[in-house]
Amino acid sequence: MESIPDLIKKKRDGKELCDQEIKTFIQAVTNKTIQECQIGAMLMAIWQKGMVNTETTTLTREMMSSGEVMSWPKEWEGCVVDKHSTGGVGDKVSLVLAPALAACGCKVPMISGRGLAHTGGTLDKLESIPGYNIHQSAIKIREILESVGCCIVGQTEMLVPADRVLYALRDATSTVDSLPLITGSIISKKGAESLSALVLDVKFGRAALYKDLQSAKELAQSLVNAGNGLGMRTGAVLSCMDATIGRFVGNSLEVIESLETLKGRGPDDLMELVTTLGGFLLMTTGSASNLSEGRKKISEAVTGGAALSKFQAMMEKQGVAKEMARLLCSAHSDYYSVLRKAKHQKELKTSAEGVAVDFDGLVLAEILHKLGAGRSKAGEPVNHSVGAELLVSLGQRVVKGEPWLRLHYEDPAPTTDQISRLQSALTVGKYDDAQTQHKMSLVKELMLN
Amino acid sequence: MESIPDLIKKKRDGKELCDQEIKTFIQAVTNKTIQECQIGAMLMAIWQKGMVNTETTTLTREMMSSGEVMSWPKEWEGCVVDKHSTGGVGDKVSLVLAPALAACGCKVPMISGRGLAHTGGTLDKLESIPGYNIHQSAIKIREILESVGCCIVGQTEMLVPADRVLYALRDATSTVDSLPLITGSIISKKGAESLSALVLDVKFGRAALYKDLQSAKELAQSLVNAGNGLGMRTGAVLSCMDATIGRFVGNSLEVIESLETLKGRGPDDLMELVTTLGGFLLMTTGSASNLSEGRKKISEAVTGGAALSKFQAMMEKQGVAKEMARLLCSAHSDYYSVLRKAKHQKELKTSAEGVAVDFDGLVLAEILHKLGAGRSKAGEPVNHSVGAELLVSLGQRVVKGEPWLRLHYEDPAPTTDQISRLQSALTVGKYDDAQTQHKMSLVKELMLN
Repeated sequence: MESIPDLIKKKRDGKELCDQEIKTFIQAVTNKTIQECQIGAMLMAIWQKGMVNTETTTLTREMMSSGEVMSWPKEWEGCVVDKHSTGGVGDKVSLVLAPALAACGCKVPMISGRGLAHTGGTLDKLESIPGYNIHQSAIKIREILESVGCCIVGQTEMLVPADRVLYALRDATSTVDSLPLITGSIISKKGAESLSALVLDVKFGRAALYKDLQSAKELAQSLVNAGNGLGMRTGAVLSCMDATIGRFVGNSLEVIESLETLKGRGPDDLMELVTTLGGFLLMTTGSASNLSEGRKKISEAVTGGAALSKFQAMMEKQGVAKEMARLLCSAHSDYYSVLRKAKHQKELKTSAEGVAVDFDGLVLAEILHKLGAGRSKAGEPVNHSVGAELLVSLGQRVVKGEPWLRLHYEDPAPTTDQISRLQSALTVGKYDDAQTQHKMSLVKELMLN
Repeated sequence: MESIPDLIKKKRDGKELCDQEIKTFIQAVTNKTIQECQIGAMLMAIWQKGMVNTETTTLTREMMSSGEVMSWPKEWEGCVVDKHSTGGVGDKVSLVLAPALAACGCKVPMISGRGLAHTGGTLDKLESIPGYNIHQSAIKIREILESVGCCIVGQTEMLVPADRVLYALRDATSTVDSLPLITGSIISKKGAESLSALVLDVKFGRAALYKDLQSAKELAQSLVNAGNGLGMRTGAVLSCMDATIGRFVGNSLEVIESLETLKGRGPDDLMELVTTLGGFLLMTTGSASNLSEGRKKISEAVTGGAALSKFQAMMEKQGVAKEMARLLCSAHSDYYSVLRKAKHQKELKTSAEGVAVDFDGLVLAEILHKLGAGRSKAGEPVNHSVGAELLVSLGQRVVKGEPWLRLHYEDPAPTTDQISRLQSALTVGKYDDAQTQHKMSLVKELMLN
């Protein structure tokens, strides 16, 4: 068998690694029989030389097989689904989509992540609900799927241990932005969920990992290939991440907006994403004959209240007190009787008259991160109450001095510089029909396998 | 200040690192404030993207400055010299050259290395002399240079600690063959000797690191640049490493051939290398007005016995008993009264009549390595008595059945396969004047700064 330095040398020289060689590498990572410096060198060699599709699929499969792989009852065959998003600002899609899919008869064992830097994390959002426990065993997950149909949980220690090691080292070694490594990390975790179908929300734009559509499409293609390579029917949605998704950003604020959406009062852009991603999955699993029928079913599950019931049941099963869950899901909740509200609110006012034509979501996200809504390093706590409400929508006419943003903060308070950066993040200008419409619709392209 | 991942990213992307950035990296390596995976990634990024001359020189200088840098009395200015060889088979040049230079008035604080795989190491050769102590403190080195003029010692813990770390990890990460990394490793150690002049014996051919002259010239150019960048007058000799240097290979056998050479009975090829390398240094330091005068002075120091006296004095200063040193250096020594002889000898016989036109030194070196003359991993012991004597020279006429190689072995004994590989390593053919002459002369090119 080839030694680890031989494998590194082969990739270093731009050659393809065969299945057995990739298996050797990933097993050495999992069993900790490889030196850390060798992992660093291999990651950099992969970053430099890339991998062909077959290598990436094998890498993904071996990472998946490094730990526990879930198994489901025979009768669920064809209806276990999930979604993965590459991360955005105000991205609360999972909180609405998982229960909507469950309401349509799917099983959704959603394993989510935490936020890092300016990107929010679904688990952090859910943890702003007192009692919500993201730690659920494989047995408990199956039980919740049996009774409710969806759960949103964290990754267990047993799941994809190779990814835990590689992910931590990629950050330290500047090898995060490598297509095969991103693909392996994302798809191995979804593979371990033993899904029938998977849809990816691949974002591009100023607040996304990839700034342009072209690079996002390359990532989407790589993810779709690997997903299908692992036997999951996989597709991708390319969506724009320039501003925010919906109008609420911050952990508890996004729970509130998700609940409002589940009560039929959600913003159009969020609904567009939820119905497209969900519709895609329903079409793929055969629960809908085409995308538009799929979107309609999801839309009805959301507006008709079926998804809300699923969300309420899921919260209860994951540890939220019955009464609290009921309160949050009642038609006219006082959300702050359950969720913590930040001590301070500050409204920003527009400085000109015109139309809100653009908003820089990255600026808002970076400032909220600094105010405590996000973390700089894995393991740090976040302040769930910090966030912001956009009080205007893109395309909306505003008068001078009108409040357009409500900032929720505690300690630290926003600095003068941060306030002025936020003011500059909103562009008030002349209404341009085509351009504004373009910005309002987030979904730009669909990619089937 | 930039973080380590920032530095890795910069090199990963093929950008030049500035002086401060290289300093940050090397200091982090020295102080162990960098993660091992980050060193692995940086080494691979340097392997992939290379370094421009100024970066390599800075890397070399920072590595040098990571530890103790020697200092010499003012009156030695201009005459502290050393040689470095990239490693060959039967390469005993240092054992003859260091005392020859000392006999010509130079100060030679030669810090040598140990053998690895098929390549021999000067320290291992000297340690086959009972009592020879390669561990000498900086104070002791200065004292020996003061009284004798030369010493051959091992690297102390205090010298170039950054190289110790990087060297060990380069092997594990398949980043050994990188010009800037090789250059940094070699020249930083020579820089720490605070030399006035340095000559490099850069080898090419089947038994060398680089197989062809062109790659060897690139390495030589990089080494010469960095040496001069550190303020040492540096030049290089490109020499062929296809067969062996001299006719004895193996640790104690090479000591014997060195002593024979110091007694004026050395083989031509070894003398050619010694006088060229030494002559170059004498010319560079101004002790000779040109190369040919320099070569003549070195040649006279060797054949006239002055170098032998220096070697005898050096052995005594480095721990060899006076009587033993005298015995080894007497005109007709019984070397094996001092050095250990292998338990078994076996002579190989020629299978055809003709002229010895070629010999594959790598085959011999690999087999001797397996028989215990070399080590596979740093720290392993070697059997000093294992080796071989070539009984014929290239260009010499042989009759069928004539002994041409005497193998010195103990445990393990050579296998039938090894014996037949050795037999095939010698090519007996038709005399071709030009070709044979070409093979007999090792020095192919000189490179001045």
